[in-house]
Amino acid sequence: MDELQDLVAAYRILAGHGVIDAYGHVSLRSPKNPNRYYLARSLAPERVQEDDLIEYDLDSKPLDADGRESVLERFIHGEIYRARPEVMCVVHNHSPSVVPFSVTGVPMRALYHMAAFIGDGLPTFEIRDVRKGTDLLIRDAALGRALAQTLSAKPAALMRGHGAVVVGENLPRAVGRSVYLEQSARMQMQALLLAGPDGKITYFDEAEVKASVSRQDYHRAWPLWRDKALERAKADRR
Amino acid sequence: MDELQDLVAAYRILAGHGVIDAYGHVSLRSPKNPNRYYLARSLAPERVQEDDLIEYDLDSKPLDADGRESVLERFIHGEIYRARPEVMCVVHNHSPSVVPFSVTGVPMRALYHMAAFIGDGLPTFEIRDVRKGTDLLIRDAALGRALAQTLSAKPAALMRGHGAVVVGENLPRAVGRSVYLEQSARMQMQALLLAGPDGKITYFDEAEVKASVSRQDYHRAWPLWRDKALERAKADRR
Amino acid sequence: MDELQDLVAAYRILAGHGVIDAYGHVSLRSPKNPNRYYLARSLAPERVQEDDLIEYDLDSKPLDADGRESVLERFIHGEIYRARPEVMCVVHNHSPSVVPFSVTGVPMRALYHMAAFIGDGLPTFEIRDVRKGTDLLIRDAALGRALAQTLSAKPAALMRGHGAVVVGENLPRAVGRSVYLEQSARMQMQALLLAGPDGKITYFDEAEVKASVSRQDYHRAWPLWRDKALERAKADRR
Amino acid sequence: MDELQDLVAAYRILAGHGVIDAYGHVSLRSPKNPNRYYLARSLAPERVQEDDLIEYDLDSKPLDADGRESVLERFIHGEIYRARPEVMCVVHNHSPSVVPFSVTGVPMRALYHMAAFIGDGLPTFEIRDVRKGTDLLIRDAALGRALAQTLSAKPAALMRGHGAVVVGENLPRAVGRSVYLEQSARMQMQALLLAGPDGKITYFDEAEVKASVSRQDYHRAWPLWRDKALERAKADRR
Repeated sequence: MDELQDLVAAYRILAGHGVIDAYGHVSLRSPKNPNRYYLARSLAPERVQEDDLIEYDLDSKPLDADGRESVLERFIHGEIYRARPEVMCVVHNHSPSVVPFSVTGVPMRALYHMAAFIGDGLPTFEIRDVRKGTDLLIRDAALGRALAQTLSAKPAALMRGHGAVVVGENLPRAVGRSVYLEQSARMQMQALLLAGPDGKITYFDEAEVKASVSRQDYHRAWPLWRDKALERAKADRR
Repeated sequence: MDELQDLVAAYRILAGHGVIDAYGHVSLRSPKNPNRYYLARSLAPERVQEDDLIEYDLDSKPLDADGRESVLERFIHGEIYRARPEVMCVVHNHSPSVVPFSVTGVPMRALYHMAAFIGDGLPTFEIRDVRKGTDLLIRDAALGRALAQTLSAKPAALMRGHGAVVVGENLPRAVGRSVYLEQSARMQMQALLLAGPDGKITYFDEAEVKASVSRQDYHRAWPLWRDKALERAKADRR
Repeated sequence: MDELQDLVAAYRILAGHGVIDAYGHVSLRSPKNPNRYYLARSLAPERVQEDDLIEYDLDSKPLDADGRESVLERFIHGEIYRARPEVMCVVHNHSPSVVPFSVTGVPMRALYHMAAFIGDGLPTFEIRDVRKGTDLLIRDAALGRALAQTLSAKPAALMRGHGAVVVGENLPRAVGRSVYLEQSARMQMQALLLAGPDGKITYFDEAEVKASVSRQDYHRAWPLWRDKALERAKADRR
Repeated sequence: MDELQDLVAAYRILAGHGVIDAYGHVSLRSPKNPNRYYLARSLAPERVQEDDLIEYDLDSKPLDADGRESVLERFIHGEIYRARPEVMCVVHNHSPSVVPFSVTGVPMRALYHMAAFIGDGLPTFEIRDVRKGTDLLIRDAALGRALAQTLSAKPAALMRGHGAVVVGENLPRAVGRSVYLEQSARMQMQALLLAGPDGKITYFDEAEVKASVSRQDYHRAWPLWRDKALERAKADRR
């Protein structure tokens, strides 16, 4: 299936952009069955090949594990697919410039046209509001549901002290949003430092966000990213 | 035509320096006809080859598209060439350290001799002053003209929430200015942080800017950059 | 011995992550004799092979030097192994984002789940408290013992103006902690800048630290890191 | 001559560490004649080979140019060798984290043991004190002498809005100092940001500087750096 090659590419693209390191994962809702999704087994993202992909139901039970180890936090994916029927792809990462926002309460705002999807802000998931004394991992369906509730109808949510989830109606959109969310966080931190405590920053207004979001599928970047990623995947199989 | 190989190199140099990523573009006024320019089709910059270049008139109408897709924002190039007869090369980028300046109103100033062309400041194009509710892209000739007006006689202009345009009387100059504009933005942000709110920064004075600008064609860097870029282009064709 | 290959990998992993450059070292307590440890001879970490490893006793006297030069600061390792029987691996580095914390007294705190081991803070070793006018290097057993005392029961200690020591009950843990200590320092600096002087940062609470630390062995990252490092080691031997 | 291979390596090491880009240069006093020095022709540093080296007298007149173009700023080297008989190597760079210090008057101070040579501060050369309205380049012997006077007996001097000069009694020392001056500037900026306006930073005291400087020749790094650089030089000649 071509879509599974897209998913292999997505793992490697996100690793290549430093948005995920040895951790983080990306899933794809099955194009054949909306109650199924694909996610790689517990493996470093830059090593993923098509035969590392496992099919799950929305309870995040593996259907064809064959002894392959599932990632602990797969409930992130299952519960978001259940709550958001239009979402076809979910990314979970530890985006290094996004984590500082997640622990400070400083709101991310759209200020760069490649990440206009941030709009007037993204919600932050505070796991303590749901359960005390965790290791911050989404280890079960209840935590996954709480995260999906925080995400609500937004394109992404920060996870306090942990990272982010980013979603899209297609795979290039979720991958592109993840790449540019990281870049926009860096830009916003720099803009805040430049502007100083009393400074003014021009964020996107509502009409600009609306005009940008509907169109932005990162479709010039995607073929480049995909080709390079799949060339590496092919080289690794040799 | 050797000049077209220069343009292929320019795309790859700018991508290699992180000044443009999968987006951004660079054009060259035709050395044979001042009313024509060359620009690559819609393609990731690090993949550009000579047969991806399309010739345009100053209305930004393609003359030899042959089914190749034009970039949406080509009007940036056509309108600047129309307004600035001496300009032979135009770069449009999303320079990551320049965008934060574009949204804060903190003026960029010349403080590093490799980017003395910044002089006493660069204008910022605020698209809202021309049209409300856009996605910030220069989608037509009217927006291109407005941007060219903001640029006026300057070597570069910031585009709020989007990036920059950089021009030059020759291609190495426009490419070199783009590389060092990014670096100078990083240095200025660091200098502002070091100096603090009441600190003093020594910027270039008028005489220093004048002495620097006339000479600076980045001619020691250019052959290195060009050779490396064209070696990669050649390797990609195999 | 497989463990020695792990140690070779550890040197190369830490160099590859920029946590150690041409300097820094990592040791492994002998799995056969708790009064012995292995450490590479004085050599740039990214060049280390198995036959560069020297066995030491806890006085840091080489047992099989055969003319190979020992690193000056080996006492760091011997004295920590003596003081901390459960520790199997010791890393010494010049982690670039950690050094600024070491000279300011700003305490590092756990705010990122991959580095929860930082807990409620790490001690800083001030060599001046032990001896005046040094070059900051741990050149003898007395300085090593003082450093081990500062480390106490903690997973890591900063060394003022110099770097850090990081320990673990196994090698992947000490290596992983070193990688994420650097990343967490960068995130904390950014969070402090974002929050501003009066801002609030949500650090891990005691229960979250406890829940995280017991489990975190970086076991998804380790096989990827190890394989890549040993592939490079093999290529270097050709 | 082995020393000339060292100099070829020095060019490539400094470029590889991002301390010099397409610009910057490094020279070596002739081991046979203290009134002569070697410097590469005008060429990007990462391309330098032994036959690109030109011999100069202390007036910076080339002795064996054979049509090869000299770098404009060679007077930096000649005048420092004349003023400082013990200096065997001079580096001129545009060290990106050092330039912001050069324009703010914030003094660099020793806070990291690998760059203890910074001591209680480095002088900054303000070209305006010597000549108004320049392009900041050291285009003649008079400017070179003024720079050497500012440098005085120090291991390095900043050049306002331009970069730095770094010297050493041997080549590895000057190269190592250049690499760690850049890193120390980054660390000091971060320490200043962490400490805040009223914060305290622990710098090296006089005795610590003295204990460090006499010994520090970067002799563990040098063979690694040299070998890697000369492997690349050899590969480039094929």
